[in-house]
Amino acid sequence: MATDTQIRIGVMGCADIARKVSRAINLAPNATIAAVASRSLEKAKSFATANNYPESTKIHGSYESILEDPEIDALYVPLPTSLHVEWAIKAAEKGKHILLEKPVAMNVTEFDKIVVACEANGVQIMDGTMWVHNPRTALLKEFLSDSERFGQLKTVQSCFSFAGDEEFLKNDIRVKPGLDGLGALGDAGWYTIRATLLANNFELPKTVTAFPGAVLNKAGVILSCGASLSWEDGRTATIYCSFLANLTMEITAIGTKGTLRVHDFIIPYKESEASFTTSTKAWFNDLVTAWVSPPSEHTVKTELPQEACMVREFARLVGEIKNNGAKPDGYWPSISRKTQLVVDAVKESVDKNYQQISLSGR
Amino acid sequence: MATDTQIRIGVMGCADIARKVSRAINLAPNATIAAVASRSLEKAKSFATANNYPESTKIHGSYESILEDPEIDALYVPLPTSLHVEWAIKAAEKGKHILLEKPVAMNVTEFDKIVVACEANGVQIMDGTMWVHNPRTALLKEFLSDSERFGQLKTVQSCFSFAGDEEFLKNDIRVKPGLDGLGALGDAGWYTIRATLLANNFELPKTVTAFPGAVLNKAGVILSCGASLSWEDGRTATIYCSFLANLTMEITAIGTKGTLRVHDFIIPYKESEASFTTSTKAWFNDLVTAWVSPPSEHTVKTELPQEACMVREFARLVGEIKNNGAKPDGYWPSISRKTQLVVDAVKESVDKNYQQISLSGR
Repeated sequence: MATDTQIRIGVMGCADIARKVSRAINLAPNATIAAVASRSLEKAKSFATANNYPESTKIHGSYESILEDPEIDALYVPLPTSLHVEWAIKAAEKGKHILLEKPVAMNVTEFDKIVVACEANGVQIMDGTMWVHNPRTALLKEFLSDSERFGQLKTVQSCFSFAGDEEFLKNDIRVKPGLDGLGALGDAGWYTIRATLLANNFELPKTVTAFPGAVLNKAGVILSCGASLSWEDGRTATIYCSFLANLTMEITAIGTKGTLRVHDFIIPYKESEASFTTSTKAWFNDLVTAWVSPPSEHTVKTELPQEACMVREFARLVGEIKNNGAKPDGYWPSISRKTQLVVDAVKESVDKNYQQISLSGR
Repeated sequence: MATDTQIRIGVMGCADIARKVSRAINLAPNATIAAVASRSLEKAKSFATANNYPESTKIHGSYESILEDPEIDALYVPLPTSLHVEWAIKAAEKGKHILLEKPVAMNVTEFDKIVVACEANGVQIMDGTMWVHNPRTALLKEFLSDSERFGQLKTVQSCFSFAGDEEFLKNDIRVKPGLDGLGALGDAGWYTIRATLLANNFELPKTVTAFPGAVLNKAGVILSCGASLSWEDGRTATIYCSFLANLTMEITAIGTKGTLRVHDFIIPYKESEASFTTSTKAWFNDLVTAWVSPPSEHTVKTELPQEACMVREFARLVGEIKNNGAKPDGYWPSISRKTQLVVDAVKESVDKNYQQISLSGR
């Protein structure tokens, strides 16, 4: 049941991912689904039914219409990336807070326009990167910032691949230049870049250089690529993303004293718990024939699924603004922007034949 | 006890690694330690005592002297890399088979001279890369070549780092340009390159490009670096090696249908067993909130430590030559050469400000 303190969220578009986030809004204690929109009323209706929307949910047959709905506080926007700049700005101008799917825009210039609109209208914006809201992620950060257990970061390697089938590689919006034209980089790569930045305390790298061997489809959309990143003080990172290889998602972060590994960082193996592996000052026995201190595994119980944690945090921030006169939290758009900046730099490097791209001043 | 069929191995130099390999020779059923040499008789004597050498072991006070010993079939050579070309050629010319520590030479030109000498004298050469002899490695290869469980390789990412202490970073031969002048690349990097080539059926990459951010000491020796490799058909790989970060050794190989992970590929956590993780056609549940087919772990019992497996294989090949008139096995020098070629290319790329190096025709 919706309560007065619940943030009323409208779902703007019936993409596949909206099924999962709809469930998350239903699960989040401080949010409720108040409306749904599609370009067709019929589609919106059947989506609402299929996803157990409350009876009270208003059904809109156009995006324009949901923007005008006075009964919603915020919008969840899972539209194709190329439409973000238009609709997120319109939403901000109508005073709606925005939970925006990733990648947040086709490039950082577009995203900056969205942020300007959000700031001008005092609305919260947060991107839909779910894994950072998993309770596990707080423990990952704790380990990475522990000077005794981890020390100083030296390198972080992250990858996310999944094998798109024939249908996906032909028709999914993520392989279409006019829709999610950043392809595997904007989709899978987004997560690996976020992980890399998280491990680096969101300090931007000095250089980004794509690896030779990126795979593009005939329309020029990236299906697979990798890149190396470097920081002033010698830290390095690699990312790899692909629509062409078996489902794999890894973070390996190595510091002067410790190592962190996560094998399911974007979608945990199980909804109810999430694990990671750490080691500190690992070494060998005397003859170097075995380890004296092999890595250890840690498991965190997840009471709410991570996407519901995301919605709960978004709704909490919106509630602070709505009920307590707080200002929008600048952290979330700032990390969206940095992630997008690195996405852009990898794309630029691929476009420029794997040239080294400097991020100084960006 | 030595038997007539055992291959008599002389240990040429008392490096730390020779302790482990001496034990391995003692453990290998078809090999025995017949002699040891150091530049000082005293050092050779105390090394023999400390490492439980058979009473019958001959003690040599110079490398020249052990070369002349008619009672040995083969030499294990753990000398600093810069000395390999000189002493391996001398050993070959004396008809001694050679188990040569890695990196096999300072560059492939030197290694080719060693191979010419071995071929001219009909002696077997094998490098001291132990992990490939672990029974686990056969299973890794089996998985990687399984068209149903793994499919076609798309990328392989490998790293090996360990945190050298102050003493190591100041005085170890691996940070001295005149001794093991290839530094972390020749030492830790060697293993990651071997893993990469193994996953690629020892097909050489088309290009090798070091990552910006390599760390060199004042003498110009690499302490930390990484590189990306690419093949004609779109396969890619990354390697990372470092003396400056916590002990970590990883292989992640991703194919069209499967993924392989190994977390202790060079030195297994335990001597008695070794594990690895595989997944095939991994995917999510309907709402993409969990995996339906998480990776599974496989464990192999190791009856003989991997370094003893290495000695056993080396002694088997020497025995075939000595007793059955077989020819030296060309596989082992061919993979040593390819590994060295990629080491050289990474170094060249670092030296040339991270330029892309083509391996065509090498």
